[in-house]
Amino acid sequence: MTQPSSVQNSISAPARIADADEALSLDELQLAARNHGMPLEALQYDVTPPGLHYLLVHYDIPFVDPATWRLAVTGHVARELTLDLAALRSMPRQTRRVTFECAGNGRARLSPRPISQPWLTEAVGTAEWTGVPLAAVLAEAGVLPGAVDVAFTGADHGVERGVEQDYARSLHLSDAVDGEVLLADEMNRAPLPPQHGAPVRLVAPGWYGMAQVKWLQRITVMDRPFDGFQNVTAYRLKKGDEAGDPVTRILPRALMVPPGFPDFMSRIRIVDRGRHTLRGRAWSGWAPITRVEVSTDSGASWGDAELDPADPGVGRWAWRKWSLDWDVAAEGRTELLCRATDELGHVQPVDQPWNRQGMANNMVQRIPVFVRS
Amino acid sequence: MTQPSSVQNSISAPARIADADEALSLDELQLAARNHGMPLEALQYDVTPPGLHYLLVHYDIPFVDPATWRLAVTGHVARELTLDLAALRSMPRQTRRVTFECAGNGRARLSPRPISQPWLTEAVGTAEWTGVPLAAVLAEAGVLPGAVDVAFTGADHGVERGVEQDYARSLHLSDAVDGEVLLADEMNRAPLPPQHGAPVRLVAPGWYGMAQVKWLQRITVMDRPFDGFQNVTAYRLKKGDEAGDPVTRILPRALMVPPGFPDFMSRIRIVDRGRHTLRGRAWSGWAPITRVEVSTDSGASWGDAELDPADPGVGRWAWRKWSLDWDVAAEGRTELLCRATDELGHVQPVDQPWNRQGMANNMVQRIPVFVRS
Repeated sequence: MTQPSSVQNSISAPARIADADEALSLDELQLAARNHGMPLEALQYDVTPPGLHYLLVHYDIPFVDPATWRLAVTGHVARELTLDLAALRSMPRQTRRVTFECAGNGRARLSPRPISQPWLTEAVGTAEWTGVPLAAVLAEAGVLPGAVDVAFTGADHGVERGVEQDYARSLHLSDAVDGEVLLADEMNRAPLPPQHGAPVRLVAPGWYGMAQVKWLQRITVMDRPFDGFQNVTAYRLKKGDEAGDPVTRILPRALMVPPGFPDFMSRIRIVDRGRHTLRGRAWSGWAPITRVEVSTDSGASWGDAELDPADPGVGRWAWRKWSLDWDVAAEGRTELLCRATDELGHVQPVDQPWNRQGMANNMVQRIPVFVRS
Repeated sequence: MTQPSSVQNSISAPARIADADEALSLDELQLAARNHGMPLEALQYDVTPPGLHYLLVHYDIPFVDPATWRLAVTGHVARELTLDLAALRSMPRQTRRVTFECAGNGRARLSPRPISQPWLTEAVGTAEWTGVPLAAVLAEAGVLPGAVDVAFTGADHGVERGVEQDYARSLHLSDAVDGEVLLADEMNRAPLPPQHGAPVRLVAPGWYGMAQVKWLQRITVMDRPFDGFQNVTAYRLKKGDEAGDPVTRILPRALMVPPGFPDFMSRIRIVDRGRHTLRGRAWSGWAPITRVEVSTDSGASWGDAELDPADPGVGRWAWRKWSLDWDVAAEGRTELLCRATDELGHVQPVDQPWNRQGMANNMVQRIPVFVRS
């Protein structure tokens, strides 16, 4: 990681917060046009079809030739390794269904708005990832006593707030060897698409997307804490200029398939009077979901949705289905809200949990609806 | 098509143009978060991988069960048809490589800005579409004398500027039976993804995306001009309140793979001094591309790029590769531009071709670059 003296502040500026009356900038739109959320009607799928799963790429998509790709395992290990794709694929493989969410999801609804990728609420998706447990590769390398962090470096290269870098993130050793983390080369039983990290990416179930390093090229076992930009600067929870706490696991969230049909431009939903079954998904990276509540009167009152039975074959890292019948009598406008609670007692807030980088904001979804006669 | 009296103007408003100082609205961001362009580094692919191809959905993605899907062929025909997927797939099939582009591409760079899906320059993609020629299905139905238009209705339902509708577009009969148009059920040799119109969509090579009706459910041969919203109101070239001309075929455009690497937020490219090969693609729905010019000095001067030989196996509907070597000596900022010319003499404009709905805007791409020492 180097500080390129030739890259001026006007080109790669510090993070900032929008002024009170400042609308979306062209910079934010450029990111929104490249990256994309999951259209919320796709919540109906247990596993999100390719192309609908949310996507965030910090720099450019690097196009890595699987034939020449190598994974280096280096640092504080007994045996440094260089693995090609065949060697990695020859190790015992596992498949996990995992819900991913961007740590910046909901950022564009914060006030004041942190300037970055302007997500509303759709930066989610669930896929079946297949690959080799990271623990097995680390065991083959032999982690030496005194190791504390494991850093993962991708092939995506750029500059961010003046710092030129290959995208890199670390996990604490205990998280890296917990048996859940995969080096995945398949998404939904097919080779990874280029934009999702081909040929190999990290899958750290329960963690926000910043931990899921794509286009993985190097694993470095470290005997001191990793101090890379994405851990120490970018993905932090802070109100001001303090160091702040790291962003880690996904806080609970419920999302609803918007009922009825939309207006093209406002996306307001038109719903006919009568009975509707509201459906959605809920997830948490901390603990199983225990409750989903729905409000059909703009938040004045809440009712419990029914949670589908958890499928023991699926494991604990994928979203859970919920539903609630809604008898619609009154014509006019209302808002639908939903919120999830997990087994550790985390509940989604109705008011914004503001922080200056707009991270881990799990404020409840609001769907404006017009009931017609 | 009905005008639902219960849908108020505040929910489904007329089209409008942004005020001179009006920045991007939440409505525009909602569309940008759902729909997505093709990240321009994907211009390196002859055929765009799924998930990278641009996507615009007017309303919601309808999830159509291929087992119960039926295509009705009706109207001014000798024999009305109802085809299931097996019947359609039993007819002779063809594959065409076709470049698609949204008619609204570039809209968000217009000044003043028409309020709609806020594309910058990335609403493009090239796929291999496989299916049955529309002409064969129309021949089986037997088009009666006096037919003038053929209308195509999708399963996507919504309201737009107060008009509730299933998305529908027409082609003139002569365009519909020209032998090029396909009823496609495969994209890149795999079943259509849900978001690209599964199980069957129209593919009208050379036309802007609005003609490529997805989730096709009905073909209606008409003995009078089709007057649906998307033909008569939405996709028109006009400066004021006149009816305007219809949007039809794709005007020429060249796009360049942005060289170097980006800043995360500004997307400005950092380029090292030395020799770079600039590469890109160019296409036109009117006629073959005959010339691509590149400026590396912000438009002050232009040089001819080299066009790759046209591949006779590919046909005339896919983009064409071009390249140009660029020797970079001077440190500092510049802009890279490129523009295409087709065999009919259409040239991309350097200044904006403004119209009030922001349609068929093929103003040249500009890539801000910082050359470092």
